[in-house]
Amino acid sequence: MADQVVTLQQIRMIITSRPFHKWLGLDVVKVDNSGIEIKATWREEWVVHPEWRNTHGGILAALVDVAADYALCAKIGHPGPTIDLRVDYHKPAMPGDLIARGAVIRIGSQHSVAEAQVFDKDNALVASGRGVYFTALPKG
Amino acid sequence: MADQVVTLQQIRMIITSRPFHKWLGLDVVKVDNSGIEIKATWREEWVVHPEWRNTHGGILAALVDVAADYALCAKIGHPGPTIDLRVDYHKPAMPGDLIARGAVIRIGSQHSVAEAQVFDKDNALVASGRGVYFTALPKG
Amino acid sequence: MADQVVTLQQIRMIITSRPFHKWLGLDVVKVDNSGIEIKATWREEWVVHPEWRNTHGGILAALVDVAADYALCAKIGHPGPTIDLRVDYHKPAMPGDLIARGAVIRIGSQHSVAEAQVFDKDNALVASGRGVYFTALPKG
Amino acid sequence: MADQVVTLQQIRMIITSRPFHKWLGLDVVKVDNSGIEIKATWREEWVVHPEWRNTHGGILAALVDVAADYALCAKIGHPGPTIDLRVDYHKPAMPGDLIARGAVIRIGSQHSVAEAQVFDKDNALVASGRGVYFTALPKG
Repeated sequence: MADQVVTLQQIRMIITSRPFHKWLGLDVVKVDNSGIEIKATWREEWVVHPEWRNTHGGILAALVDVAADYALCAKIGHPGPTIDLRVDYHKPAMPGDLIARGAVIRIGSQHSVAEAQVFDKDNALVASGRGVYFTALPKG
Repeated sequence: MADQVVTLQQIRMIITSRPFHKWLGLDVVKVDNSGIEIKATWREEWVVHPEWRNTHGGILAALVDVAADYALCAKIGHPGPTIDLRVDYHKPAMPGDLIARGAVIRIGSQHSVAEAQVFDKDNALVASGRGVYFTALPKG
Repeated sequence: MADQVVTLQQIRMIITSRPFHKWLGLDVVKVDNSGIEIKATWREEWVVHPEWRNTHGGILAALVDVAADYALCAKIGHPGPTIDLRVDYHKPAMPGDLIARGAVIRIGSQHSVAEAQVFDKDNALVASGRGVYFTALPKG
Repeated sequence: MADQVVTLQQIRMIITSRPFHKWLGLDVVKVDNSGIEIKATWREEWVVHPEWRNTHGGILAALVDVAADYALCAKIGHPGPTIDLRVDYHKPAMPGDLIARGAVIRIGSQHSVAEAQVFDKDNALVASGRGVYFTALPKG
């Protein structure tokens, strides 16, 4: 597996500059050769059902996508457009900050595959999945 | 395929009562035996890249999930927890309201499958996908 | 959607020339602008459980893959390597020939998405899914 | 994670009793708390293109499905029907025996998730994926 080419500071700068990431309250906790760890700050708008108060699956899908894509970014220097995304939901994510861990599965010449897990504040696995990203270098 | 059992007014009431759906600015445009059509109201927080201004894939995943789940709801009377979700991204979704169309693929005794497409304001297909939902009736 | 560019005879020649397709007993039933219909000839080796005699999910996955890929082939003139494949299983496929119907979802400049359904001899939906294919023209 | 409850001999007996598994030339190499390793014996019928001689994606999908399902079997005592399957293809699998490694992601009360990788004879990753399985105990 290729070595990490981007520092935590660089990847934090890219991630936190993006409007949707700001709304998700994202911060980079750790990045090393094994992958990336990103924290998301819980917000009331994530709730599906006003009584049960579980977090919407779309938020968990977004976190799988971001963690997988930035695990690739740490290795190749830039994130890539998502070609497709698959998310398995394991248990309801109740109110509280979430941690998403991303890792590269394979870097290809045209597209690359990475995976991610999302954990709740008690470190229980709430969702996991994989994405395929278009990572070919722009021509020119 | 089972007939629709929930009216547009009933499904609108369920959908719009949920905090994340309110944030997505969801409204039900249409519901009939062929499926459901849901509108999402664009917001600045959806933007990925401040210059390119494309909508984040997590938002599109959320819309696929909601449209697929409520296509099932229209047939069986309630939405079900998402078991897993798959989303293909077809082209960048630029600022503007989005339309998500959901349709049932198969209703099973334990879990059911539905699909959805997301269209931009020019009616171009920006994402599509499928979800599996736990739709067994609660015991008791 | 682009018009069909390959005739039934041409696509039958490509499909039936391939060893795995011969083993699956594939033949092209129909190809038109809406998609392709392929027949697979049941064989004893497909059985999972010797008593229940249901067909293995790997066979159904192969049929979803072939029907989706050749739906693209009918539009662009050649099949493409599968980037990824997603299959939902709806009910056990009991002994008997199977029909797989494929349709294009979107043709892109680099990769394309198509879907397929598999039906048993009583025309019941036993599996369905989607694949992403690398369909860029070779450089040269 | 639950401990392994099935021995290598027991799981070998289940796996090798099934017609499609026999055709795939499956044998269990190893089973422990971290997962299962299954070998598949290459056969000429797996070939897609008579000149390039790459293995069909349907065969790789079948191996992902088997390794994921029997990783669950090793923990819970029985395989479960596949609800859905997702496979990423990483590089062409050329003629030669294949190794599939399966591992459990999460065991649930109704359905469970497991993943698998497929390696060629040079130990290169050719495909990987995940499945959701119906693992609820039969009522009675």
